[in-house]
Amino acid sequence: MTDLAADPLPRSGPRRLDERLLGLEPDPGDPGRLSFVVVPHLCRSDGRLYGGAALAASLAAAEVATGRPALWSTTQLVAVADHGDRVHVDVEVAAAGRAVHQVQVRGRVGGRLVFSAVGATATPGDAGLRGTGPHMPRVPPPDDCERWRGPGGVTAGDGSPAGVAARPEVGHHLVTEHRDAPLLDAGDARPGRMALWARLTGDVAPDPPVTTPAMLGFVADLVPLAVCRAAGVVGVGTSLDNSLRVGEPVDTEWVLIDLEGQAAVGGLGHGQVHLWSPDGRLLGTGSQSARLFRLEDFLRRSGG
Amino acid sequence: MTDLAADPLPRSGPRRLDERLLGLEPDPGDPGRLSFVVVPHLCRSDGRLYGGAALAASLAAAEVATGRPALWSTTQLVAVADHGDRVHVDVEVAAAGRAVHQVQVRGRVGGRLVFSAVGATATPGDAGLRGTGPHMPRVPPPDDCERWRGPGGVTAGDGSPAGVAARPEVGHHLVTEHRDAPLLDAGDARPGRMALWARLTGDVAPDPPVTTPAMLGFVADLVPLAVCRAAGVVGVGTSLDNSLRVGEPVDTEWVLIDLEGQAAVGGLGHGQVHLWSPDGRLLGTGSQSARLFRLEDFLRRSGG
Repeated sequence: MTDLAADPLPRSGPRRLDERLLGLEPDPGDPGRLSFVVVPHLCRSDGRLYGGAALAASLAAAEVATGRPALWSTTQLVAVADHGDRVHVDVEVAAAGRAVHQVQVRGRVGGRLVFSAVGATATPGDAGLRGTGPHMPRVPPPDDCERWRGPGGVTAGDGSPAGVAARPEVGHHLVTEHRDAPLLDAGDARPGRMALWARLTGDVAPDPPVTTPAMLGFVADLVPLAVCRAAGVVGVGTSLDNSLRVGEPVDTEWVLIDLEGQAAVGGLGHGQVHLWSPDGRLLGTGSQSARLFRLEDFLRRSGG
Repeated sequence: MTDLAADPLPRSGPRRLDERLLGLEPDPGDPGRLSFVVVPHLCRSDGRLYGGAALAASLAAAEVATGRPALWSTTQLVAVADHGDRVHVDVEVAAAGRAVHQVQVRGRVGGRLVFSAVGATATPGDAGLRGTGPHMPRVPPPDDCERWRGPGGVTAGDGSPAGVAARPEVGHHLVTEHRDAPLLDAGDARPGRMALWARLTGDVAPDPPVTTPAMLGFVADLVPLAVCRAAGVVGVGTSLDNSLRVGEPVDTEWVLIDLEGQAAVGGLGHGQVHLWSPDGRLLGTGSQSARLFRLEDFLRRSGG
């Protein structure tokens, strides 16, 4: 773990990790236009674009278009894109300031809107305010934690309803690993609170480890699981959006995904996630809203 | 306090409270178009549109355009609007489903973009998942709490840098009251955690009390204060966005604004807010990113 980002934002194009993870290709003539193909590891288990990948692409594209590190993005998931589709990502700078660029990012397949994001990129000031409010929950280190196999132990682990009828050849599990991290302090336990260690694996995993905003957005998309837990059931969800706000830039292999379900009413719910480095620094926070389903209902409907 | 919303969404036009609070006027020919004038109580203390008012207008306009209650909105604050400006609000439905409408909302003054929002409205299902994760912090009731006079006791209380050079004739304090709610349990105390009771006052205050998503967004815009506290200073912030995710629909006069600063790096920070009814039900959660400033720097610059 280092304090300095080993994968800085280059003058043109995405960071090396984001290029490998997302396959983002900049348009040589226009830094505000990029595209990527929905390859197997960018899919949910049903072969459609994974919400965490859409958020990651919004964050990385905003960085390329403005030349600044991503500060936050809310990426609204409007429609599906299928395995093999090419997604065209356009960045519009709504306001360009001395320290902050405000951006709007849209992803389209063949002219059809797939995702739409608002957010900002920003250059931190050396003398600016710095601090962290919450503290990391106490959990065992990743080496002492068991592999996590998804809600109810029956899905491919992406927490989407589609995961129930998982096809092992597609899904973000092809490039990620999650381990169940039990909360050790009673004071941290609440309905809907749960934690997982996550890291990138295989050809995508950077060596030495680096952390990028896009990578954080990619691994963090598990909030609906926690919202279902807050409602007292094992369930899955379909995200309406994925949001990330970027904290300390710390390069790390493992990230603690500290999830909290907040509120569910009538099958519609919200939750948040804190992303921690193993030494307790807050890499970012996320939130999302989702439609929620009981896992048993899905298993019954899919004949499982 | 009641369980049933006393101010339901009418077939056309905004809820009664939102109409009174925001002065939203629907375009008779197009439910996707509304407008409002930046009157004194919709301003920050410098006479410019208050972020909480932009979020409230996005939520209310989405409800009018779709005929469904607001579920969430992230409203990006792109540019200023001045006292007296007429803001035109356009709602575009990006996806219309059986239970959920996904929307994009833009506010413009004379064609210039002022705010841009993504979000959804949704009809909760009677049998859908229901639950709450976090619990309300223990605080004294509003009657036992003292009036809150803003960060450092020197501003008009809106937490914006402009509040330092407050003009008493503009600001949301014209229609809101905030009281300092000390956290009574040591377990709830953290750097950057603080709570305030808030209610609408004067001609705007509904009798009997009602709660609308727009009203929650309006009173909740105080997150930057908590982020500065997490950084260990008395400070103020300029919001880049205002986000709200709507929980239980409970009509209440007083709302507990339970703030938590999360992360600040280089003068850029993020935080969240939980909104509670006095009997401990979670009305909604919010978050935002902001540029942060030490109060003393602002006082010095403004000659205070």
